[in-house]
Amino acid sequence: EFYQAFVAYAGCNVVLAIAAAVLCAYVAPAAAGSGIPEVKAYLNGVDAHSILAPSTLFVKIFGSIFGVAGGFVLGKEGPMVHTGACIANLLGQGGSRKYHLTWTWLRYFKNDRDRRDLITCGAAAGVAAAFRAPVGGVLFALEEAASWWRGALLWRTFFTTAVVAVVLRGFILFCRNGNCGLFGEGGLIMFDVSSSITSYSTADLLVVLLLGVIGGLFGSLYNYLVDKVLRTYSIINEKGPHYKVLLVIIISLLTSCCSYGLPWFGSCTPCPDDLKEQCPTIGRSGNYKNFQCPPGHYNDLASLFLNTNDDAIRNLFSSGTENEFYLSSLFVFFFAIYGLGIITYGIAIPSGLFIPVILAGSSYGRLIGTLLGSICDLDPGLFALLGAASFLGGTMRMTVSICVILLELTNDLLMLPLVMLVLLISKTVADSFNKGVYDQILVLKGLPFMESHLEPYMKHLVARDVVSGPLMTFSSVEKVGNIMHVLRMTRHNGFPVIDEPPFVEAPELCGLVLRSHLVVLLNGKKFTKEKILCREGILRKFDAFDFAKAGSGKGLKVEDLDISPEEMDMYVDLHPITNSSPYTVVETMSLAKAAVLFRQLGLRHLCVVPKTPGRPPISGLLTRHDFMPEHIMDLYPHFNPRRKLSNRS
Amino acid sequence: EFYQAFVAYAGCNVVLAIAAAVLCAYVAPAAAGSGIPEVKAYLNGVDAHSILAPSTLFVKIFGSIFGVAGGFVLGKEGPMVHTGACIANLLGQGGSRKYHLTWTWLRYFKNDRDRRDLITCGAAAGVAAAFRAPVGGVLFALEEAASWWRGALLWRTFFTTAVVAVVLRGFILFCRNGNCGLFGEGGLIMFDVSSSITSYSTADLLVVLLLGVIGGLFGSLYNYLVDKVLRTYSIINEKGPHYKVLLVIIISLLTSCCSYGLPWFGSCTPCPDDLKEQCPTIGRSGNYKNFQCPPGHYNDLASLFLNTNDDAIRNLFSSGTENEFYLSSLFVFFFAIYGLGIITYGIAIPSGLFIPVILAGSSYGRLIGTLLGSICDLDPGLFALLGAASFLGGTMRMTVSICVILLELTNDLLMLPLVMLVLLISKTVADSFNKGVYDQILVLKGLPFMESHLEPYMKHLVARDVVSGPLMTFSSVEKVGNIMHVLRMTRHNGFPVIDEPPFVEAPELCGLVLRSHLVVLLNGKKFTKEKILCREGILRKFDAFDFAKAGSGKGLKVEDLDISPEEMDMYVDLHPITNSSPYTVVETMSLAKAAVLFRQLGLRHLCVVPKTPGRPPISGLLTRHDFMPEHIMDLYPHFNPRRKLSNRS
Repeated sequence: EFYQAFVAYAGCNVVLAIAAAVLCAYVAPAAAGSGIPEVKAYLNGVDAHSILAPSTLFVKIFGSIFGVAGGFVLGKEGPMVHTGACIANLLGQGGSRKYHLTWTWLRYFKNDRDRRDLITCGAAAGVAAAFRAPVGGVLFALEEAASWWRGALLWRTFFTTAVVAVVLRGFILFCRNGNCGLFGEGGLIMFDVSSSITSYSTADLLVVLLLGVIGGLFGSLYNYLVDKVLRTYSIINEKGPHYKVLLVIIISLLTSCCSYGLPWFGSCTPCPDDLKEQCPTIGRSGNYKNFQCPPGHYNDLASLFLNTNDDAIRNLFSSGTENEFYLSSLFVFFFAIYGLGIITYGIAIPSGLFIPVILAGSSYGRLIGTLLGSICDLDPGLFALLGAASFLGGTMRMTVSICVILLELTNDLLMLPLVMLVLLISKTVADSFNKGVYDQILVLKGLPFMESHLEPYMKHLVARDVVSGPLMTFSSVEKVGNIMHVLRMTRHNGFPVIDEPPFVEAPELCGLVLRSHLVVLLNGKKFTKEKILCREGILRKFDAFDFAKAGSGKGLKVEDLDISPEEMDMYVDLHPITNSSPYTVVETMSLAKAAVLFRQLGLRHLCVVPKTPGRPPISGLLTRHDFMPEHIMDLYPHFNPRRKLSNRS
Repeated sequence: EFYQAFVAYAGCNVVLAIAAAVLCAYVAPAAAGSGIPEVKAYLNGVDAHSILAPSTLFVKIFGSIFGVAGGFVLGKEGPMVHTGACIANLLGQGGSRKYHLTWTWLRYFKNDRDRRDLITCGAAAGVAAAFRAPVGGVLFALEEAASWWRGALLWRTFFTTAVVAVVLRGFILFCRNGNCGLFGEGGLIMFDVSSSITSYSTADLLVVLLLGVIGGLFGSLYNYLVDKVLRTYSIINEKGPHYKVLLVIIISLLTSCCSYGLPWFGSCTPCPDDLKEQCPTIGRSGNYKNFQCPPGHYNDLASLFLNTNDDAIRNLFSSGTENEFYLSSLFVFFFAIYGLGIITYGIAIPSGLFIPVILAGSSYGRLIGTLLGSICDLDPGLFALLGAASFLGGTMRMTVSICVILLELTNDLLMLPLVMLVLLISKTVADSFNKGVYDQILVLKGLPFMESHLEPYMKHLVARDVVSGPLMTFSSVEKVGNIMHVLRMTRHNGFPVIDEPPFVEAPELCGLVLRSHLVVLLNGKKFTKEKILCREGILRKFDAFDFAKAGSGKGLKVEDLDISPEEMDMYVDLHPITNSSPYTVVETMSLAKAAVLFRQLGLRHLCVVPKTPGRPPISGLLTRHDFMPEHIMDLYPHFNPRRKLSNRS
């Protein structure tokens, strides 16, 4: 009988897992994983293909549903952030032309900044909806997602999450009578622990500090292991989509074995006398699962494993239930979840990191609380909360946003000082070992993320030292053939334009022209036979929005152009589309200062001009890639700390 | 008997008021007012004298105590922010040399950025302590105080406020037995309203929207009137310190008359049956004041007027007390506090704006709640909270920080969506009339604050258009006499340095040198008879910290230098102290872009270089003042919207 039950259980899980994996592997590989690093990279200025495409959105939503339903140890929070960002992107692009969903009234978002703002709002909405935490959503967007921050953005995200809160509240009221499954339960506060006692002594404080330190260690270990596992998985995943699906099936079976097999080791406990009505729980969600036990008894491990993730967290956070869980059960659960969480992230399904970390953290906290119950008066439920905080601080390294999210999750304002302390301690401890988990994933994915802090070696280099590649420049009135040649041969997106005699006395920097604008200009075919200035006359042929930034993956490409051989010998005046005052730095400027300029102003191209007069008016162009540590380490290997170590040994 | 009581009451108030006013008028005029605009300006880069001086700190602390004790309608929150910033400044300067409080181990803060970070933390600590709201403190520092924001700063302010929370909690525990007066009361939550019912219907939502709109109108009217009153007061205050003290005495008497006189119009109400123990309150702080009423009765107006501001707010926020206050009483209280709040700000005592606005807002909210009690099920106490939110949003125009501060003040997470809505509505309504109250005060004080948003006319100007004054440049090896002459004649703080033949072929921009560094270099007297390069050799004479930024008002001045006539004819090599790669813009760059660069990188000087080669290597220097609207309006009056209007009429 129990064997059949396992087959049914594992079977359902595997079917759901395969559904999620097939979507992910064949339709939109970008939808795998959390999505928060990708959103972070996009908001940093990385315009990688398909990060926020409609197909990614579709797979993210359904893959996440299948994944969570399939019983994996993963969260829906990261995917919801990504979903929010994708929806915002879709809105900001004025719909998707490919899928025949277009709005023309959304042309306001035809520039990087407004689109970025909208996507930041989308990410905030995702967090707000996932945790029912509107203020937490704003702070998450501020602390983790966004790379640039403006006052207006703060108030826009706040507005977005206020709308989310109102809509959520409407749905919860509508669903209160139970016609939407589990949705209406819990109200706006998902894990209400506000009823517990909250006075604490100095001994408690010391225990809490210890909890923070160990939580930080476990958190950084988590990051380290996730990194190792991801590197292993990427080898498997590169072999093809079949392997991806296979990997998902293996992990699904392993998870099913753990969550079905381990509760057998749990012993049956008689229900507490005062909870005869709630215990044991059969056929509905709740705290005391019956599993294999006789009536009137419950299995504490089953209450954790054979439950939704949300309910397991609620059980761990529950207060006034000191004796509900055995120490051994918590031990088993903690290690199982810690391990499963690590091996689950990185397989080809949308998988958030918040829930696994909160689960592991709260079982760890409750474990410590039960162990030290004799010297400490705090409730084990509060310990579970603090443990979750310490793990979150140790893995994700956020402070204010996690603090507010936990506050909004648990409605326990009086624990705020303790939560703040634990977060700070665990973050500090973990920061001394490695980077936050999202930053690690960014590096692993090879996304060129501009860090806000500067590397020390940047002070020893000047801008000239890292400029790479042959510089492609155009004359201000250039031959069409030359432009076409350069556009086809290189993948550069920006080209300096030089004013040359006879238009000026000596060559001088006219400005910077973008590939996308060049392609639109060439497509208009306003060419002249002679090398003459046309200035703004050219623009009459174009609409104001022709040069606006198209959605990612849209817009004209150089391959779309059809230029005849005669036209190739004609000239075109680049002045009207040249940005005539690009930001510039002198070639002898410290690379650190140039990096600050590049990052603070959110540039894509930075012109490097010579120090002394009489030389060509531009000596290079700095792009995002020139500031990446890998690029600089290639050029100057002696700055590499690892190489130094290996040389010594 | 009552006449004598009034004389005693008003007399005490006037004595305390005079104490505060004398401190403020004669010792540190900078300590008057809220202090938040000054802190905001400092963090924006305005290094105005005495804003954060030790004398200001002293007066701010004691003046605020006297002012609050003197019964004025003013808050302690703004002054506490200023106090926090002053303490941070004192710590960051390594103590005060003038008052013989110095630490040498605090040399880390000898630069603008770290000192600014420390002061931001101080401001956050002030809010955290004033409202017992650690997260609110972080957000206040982020949203209102700081002009630049970095990830590291977020986590530093968070750490600061966590320490504040722990210390506060320690004091509250220590004071719980009542040996520190009113301090221990209320715990970490100052106005706990979490017990009230929080379900609301669509009709309630409509009422709340209306509340937000009217609150926004009242808020912007408040700002308008405060502005008018401040302009009037500044005329009086300019006449001398005596007039300042006189003004304070008049306002104090007026306040005493109102708070003692108006309760006579309140009628006596029998105590509710279930509160015989708490009502009436005699000889202690509480909800039901007896005043002139017979035993067993209370005067509702006296409960509001003859109470501490905190207790009055607590009374207004109290739930389940629908019939405690008469409509007429709330009416009288609202108008009295609204008026008194407006005329109190601007007199020569430290006076915060939070408490008057919260008081007026909560009485307004309770008024609306009582008026519309028939069509709306919400508790009048919750209406008071929403009213306070609407007034705060309408005057101060903050969103997230006020929301979190109110949440931490009242511990009512379930009201969060409503509070967010009200804040957004009132802010939007008020923004269409005028600026936030702190921004208005900044303009009124003439502090050159760099706004983050750009004025539209900036797009029509280029950098060259606003460069002002004769440009003073130095040669890279300059005559001492020339330097002394320029330093004495001008008040510029930065000078471009030009490399000239014979050291280079053609003149080129060598960099930028600061006045403070020049003075230190001249003081070292490393001069040479001939015009030769010495390079770094010069620096051997100096200590690493000699060139570090001194505390405000400290550091060497040009008047302190003693240069003999022979030395005046000698030369000094400026290369070692020249910043050889200052940020530059081309003279034809749009002023808007130059302003973004200037503001985002937090510059003090921005070099403007010519577009075409063959001209002098620098054509101007932009400073903060060149970007101020007043300066630009002087140069280009046709951009002035007011002038346009008057021309037309």
